[in-house]
Amino acid sequence: MILTVTLNAALDVTYHVPRLRPRASHRVSGVCERPGGKGVNVARVLAALGHEVVATGFLGGPVGETVRQGLAGSAVADGFVPCAGTTRRTLAVVDEADGDTTQFNEAGPVISPAEWAAFQVRYADLVHEARAVALCGSLPPGLPVGAYAALVRTARAAGTPVLLDTSGEALRRGVAARPDLIKPNAAELAELTGSREPLPATRDARRRGAHAVVTSLGPAGLLAVTGQGTWGAAPPAPLSGNPTGAGDSAVAGLLSALAEDLDWPARLTRATALSAATVRAPTAGEFDRAVYEELLATVKVTAGQPVG
Amino acid sequence: MILTVTLNAALDVTYHVPRLRPRASHRVSGVCERPGGKGVNVARVLAALGHEVVATGFLGGPVGETVRQGLAGSAVADGFVPCAGTTRRTLAVVDEADGDTTQFNEAGPVISPAEWAAFQVRYADLVHEARAVALCGSLPPGLPVGAYAALVRTARAAGTPVLLDTSGEALRRGVAARPDLIKPNAAELAELTGSREPLPATRDARRRGAHAVVTSLGPAGLLAVTGQGTWGAAPPAPLSGNPTGAGDSAVAGLLSALAEDLDWPARLTRATALSAATVRAPTAGEFDRAVYEELLATVKVTAGQPVG
Repeated sequence: MILTVTLNAALDVTYHVPRLRPRASHRVSGVCERPGGKGVNVARVLAALGHEVVATGFLGGPVGETVRQGLAGSAVADGFVPCAGTTRRTLAVVDEADGDTTQFNEAGPVISPAEWAAFQVRYADLVHEARAVALCGSLPPGLPVGAYAALVRTARAAGTPVLLDTSGEALRRGVAARPDLIKPNAAELAELTGSREPLPATRDARRRGAHAVVTSLGPAGLLAVTGQGTWGAAPPAPLSGNPTGAGDSAVAGLLSALAEDLDWPARLTRATALSAATVRAPTAGEFDRAVYEELLATVKVTAGQPVG
Repeated sequence: MILTVTLNAALDVTYHVPRLRPRASHRVSGVCERPGGKGVNVARVLAALGHEVVATGFLGGPVGETVRQGLAGSAVADGFVPCAGTTRRTLAVVDEADGDTTQFNEAGPVISPAEWAAFQVRYADLVHEARAVALCGSLPPGLPVGAYAALVRTARAAGTPVLLDTSGEALRRGVAARPDLIKPNAAELAELTGSREPLPATRDARRRGAHAVVTSLGPAGLLAVTGQGTWGAAPPAPLSGNPTGAGDSAVAGLLSALAEDLDWPARLTRATALSAATVRAPTAGEFDRAVYEELLATVKVTAGQPVG
């Protein structure tokens, strides 16, 4: 199986309103809820690709219970451990007049040292059974900033390939623990390296400890700097749509191909096709399977200057 | 005991954000949750006044469970009946830069005919034990528009004084069933009668069936047209503050005094003092007890032209 870790899982709530007006009272015309947080989104895409997948992290309180119920009705196995605090909600308010979204993100439960210790025991068991693991998203309050570094070391000690997808100080500390792969976007990469030049910054990120770095450049596709070489990957033509979840789909594609031990061009093709098929899907965070299948044959992978 | 009915109960959620900006992503700096819906708010004020109080209506799903947990930790007894749908949330987003609030209200669960029948059985039992009952707020989807009229008739058959506080067609239909008291605000009264002149409109509302009508006029206080006479009641000076919950506090004051069989000037004094003390409280929907005690001695009640 493939394991995804979402330490700050969420219940993703979407409200539709006819028109968002600050200071007004709005009747919500539609409410959608589903399990969320980056690792849960990655797990959902992996399950849709046919992988056996376990999602772990913390869930607590009545909102956590709603997330568990949502997972129980899905193909993602529930490997979450309980916490005393309440799982956060994220709220997306969609203005139906112009389609724009306004986002509100709760902070999440405070995790105690005992809960963190209990999680690490569970994680060590799961990571031994996993063919690959993705560590995704922000840290909930209470966890040490080096939390991901600890989880990277446990995975590497178990011989399980580990992908880290986070930002800020958690990324900086996690990279130093030498994960197999990180997947920053341009903003996360700039924060990590201080550079906005994609190729030098991606190389810099690799020098900080990651065995490979795949930078997502939005519509321009992916840039990979690895021990085996440097590649760019992009769809044959720019695609318009909703980019929500495109990064999570790229992680799912990379992890899926990593678990199957495919080579880098095949990994990048799968990640690019999934990411673009997510942009094209009518529902945010889902992917259009027909677009995905078509792009698998048409994504362009270009070998660049080898490094390292 | 005093009974309050909230057919469309809610979990009231409040988010604090540094600045609300449409299309932006917001980190929520504070989340508060508490049981809500007008009848629940009225019950909370009645309990704070020392009354034994039971709140009933429908609760369902994980959000309903959170409301039940909130009631379990309060002085309001939980008389709610279950429903298969999920209790609604109301979300107030407070912009900390200017203090303004943007409100999002979910619609609420669809109530089935069988659930409505089960509720009416429970209500008939409760209303027999009650010294007074308040029917408060909007109807959830699925209920007949004459739902309040049925509940008014049951209360009157039991000899229990009944106050109706709703709006629109539910108010129009409910008034015709001859409740002891309705408490419209100026907008609800105008919708019911077509008139924006407070005194003629309040008299018109009484002719439609209510034994007494108390119109809340915001900072100008209350106007009562009853079989015993007409009165105005107002605080000695205008008060600034947050009007959220002031109407619910007025209902609690009227109901409390009705249950104690006080005369109209005493009822109006209590309702005006509670309402103004709610405007003055630092937390929306709560009342400032010192302000309330002081206003009990200083609210001005003026007798007007007797009617009927």
